Amino acid sequence: MTDFTEYASAFRARIDTALNQVIPDTPASQLAEAMRYSLAGGGKRIRPLLLFASYRAIAGTTEHPALETAACAVEAIHAYSLIHDDLPAMDDDALRRGRPTCHLAFDEALAILAGDALQSLAFELLADSPALADGTRIQLIRHLSRAAGMHGMVVGQAIDLAAVDTELDITQLEHMHRCKTGALIDASVAMGALIGSADSQQLKALARYSRSLGLAFQVHDDILDVTADTATLGKQQGADIARNKPTYVSLLGLTAARARAQELYQEALTALTELAGDTEPLQRIAQYVVERRH
Amino acid sequence: MTDFTEYASAFRARIDTALNQVIPDTPASQLAEAMRYSLAGGGKRIRPLLLFASYRAIAGTTEHPALETAACAVEAIHAYSLIHDDLPAMDDDALRRGRPTCHLAFDEALAILAGDALQSLAFELLADSPALADGTRIQLIRHLSRAAGMHGMVVGQAIDLAAVDTELDITQLEHMHRCKTGALIDASVAMGALIGSADSQQLKALARYSRSLGLAFQVHDDILDVTADTATLGKQQGADIARNKPTYVSLLGLTAARARAQELYQEALTALTELAGDTEPLQRIAQYVVERRH
Repeated sequence: MTDFTEYASAFRARIDTALNQVIPDTPASQLAEAMRYSLAGGGKRIRPLLLFASYRAIAGTTEHPALETAACAVEAIHAYSLIHDDLPAMDDDALRRGRPTCHLAFDEALAILAGDALQSLAFELLADSPALADGTRIQLIRHLSRAAGMHGMVVGQAIDLAAVDTELDITQLEHMHRCKTGALIDASVAMGALIGSADSQQLKALARYSRSLGLAFQVHDDILDVTADTATLGKQQGADIARNKPTYVSLLGLTAARARAQELYQEALTALTELAGDTEPLQRIAQYVVERRH
Repeated sequence: MTDFTEYASAFRARIDTALNQVIPDTPASQLAEAMRYSLAGGGKRIRPLLLFASYRAIAGTTEHPALETAACAVEAIHAYSLIHDDLPAMDDDALRRGRPTCHLAFDEALAILAGDALQSLAFELLADSPALADGTRIQLIRHLSRAAGMHGMVVGQAIDLAAVDTELDITQLEHMHRCKTGALIDASVAMGALIGSADSQQLKALARYSRSLGLAFQVHDDILDVTADTATLGKQQGADIARNKPTYVSLLGLTAARARAQELYQEALTALTELAGDTEPLQRIAQYVVERRH
C-alpha cells in the first residue's frame, strides 16, 4: 500500500464530500451554518478512517455504501463534542483546527445548539441509512449512543473537568481517557466491522486493537501538548499544563510517556495478528497515531 | 373514564418509576446526579401521557412493555432541552419546576454535559428496547431524532433566541413553535401509535391531532405567561414579555389568543373522530392542555 498520508487523503476527500452533503442548504439558517462550520474545517478524520479500515479488515473492500453514512454519524458526534468542550463553561478554548472555535465564530447559544443538533443528526443518519438491514442499524446506534453518553464520552469530559487542579493517578487518568476519547474510537472500529458483518471473535480482536490505539492516541496527544507548537497543533499548545490538568507526561515524564505510547502501539499491532483479513490500513493508522506531529 | 387528573396521576406514577430506574446508581457520579435531578422533579409528563394515550387509541390497552421505554426516551429529550434552554447563554432561567435550574443546582459545565448525556440516553434506550422488533425501534429512533434535531426542536430554539427584540408575524411565530415544541409532541403521539402498529391512515389522523394540540399547548402557555403567577407556574411569570419575545398574546391580544386556543382544541378533537379506537384519553389530554393553570 501507499504510505498513510496518501492513503488517508484519498479517504478524507470521500469523507469530506459526504460531510458537506449531510446538512441541507435549505432552509438557510445560522444553526445549519454553525453545524457545517464545525463538521468541515479539516479535521484529521481519524474516526472515519478507522471505520473504513475496520470494514476493510473484515470485508476486504472499502466500497459499502453505508460507510460514508456511518462515518458522518461518528464525525457528527465528534464535532458536537468538540464544540461543547470548547465552550467558556468547559475548556474555554479559542482555537480549534486553526480557526476560531464555534462559540467565537457564532455565539455561545448557537454553539450549544449546533452541538445538540449534530448529536441528533448522528442518530438520524444511522436510522435512515438505506443500505443497512434494520438489525445492523440498531447495532450501530447502540454502539454509538453508548460511546457518546453517560458511560462514555460525556462522563469522560465530566471527569476531565473535575480533574483540574486535582491529582489523578495513572489508573484514574487512563479511565478518564478510556471514556473521553477511547469509547468513540472503539465505536468507530466496531461500527466498520459490524457493517462488514464481523463475527464475535473478530469484534473482540478489533476491540483489543482500538483499546490500545485509543490510549496511544491520548498519550501521544499529551506528548504533543508539550512538544509541538500552537501553529502546528491548530489549538493552544501547553493548554493542559496551563490548566493544571494531569497528563501522561506530567505523571510519567516525557521519556516514559513515549515508551508507553510505543508499548500501546505494539499491543494494537499484536491484536491485529488475530485477524485473517487486510489489516494494513489499521496498522498504518496506528503508526500515524503515535508518529503524528499534530 | 375518571377525570384527567386521576387518569394522569396513575400513569405519572408509572412514568416516574421508569424514569427513576433509567439512570443506574453506580458508578456514582455528579453527572448521573445532574441527569437524575433534571429527569425527576415532577414535570407534567405531557409527552409520555400522549404516548400512552396514542397507543391506547390504536391498540386498546396501555400495557405494552415498550411504552415505558419510549416514554423515558421522549422525556430524556425533553429534559435535556429544558436544561440547555435554561443555560445563561440561552434563556438564563433560575427556576424550573419550582426548583433551581440544573446549572444553578450543579454548575454550567455539568448542566451542558447532563443535557448531552440525556440525549444519548434517549437513543440508547430505544436501540436497546427488548420488547420491540428492530424495524419498530428504527421507526421510533427516526421520529425522535428528526423531532429533536436541526429541523425540529433545536432549530425552534434557535429561531426563538433570534426572535428576541424582533417582530415575528403570526406565521413565523407558529413555525417557531411547530419546531420548538410541536415536533416533540408530534413524535410522542407517533411513537405511541407506532408501538401499536398503527397504519398510515391512523398515523395521519393522529398527526393532525398532535399538530393542533401542540399549537394549542403553546398558545395556552403564552396565555399563562401573562395570567398565572410564578408560584403556580414553577417558572418565572412574565418571562417572555420581560425578554421582549413575541407571543400569541402580544400578537393577537388575550381574547383572540383564548379563542385561538379553543379553535385548535376543537381541531384536535375533530381529528380524533377519524379513529375507531378509544380516544378518550387523547381527548382528556387536549382538554387539560387548554384548561391547565400551570
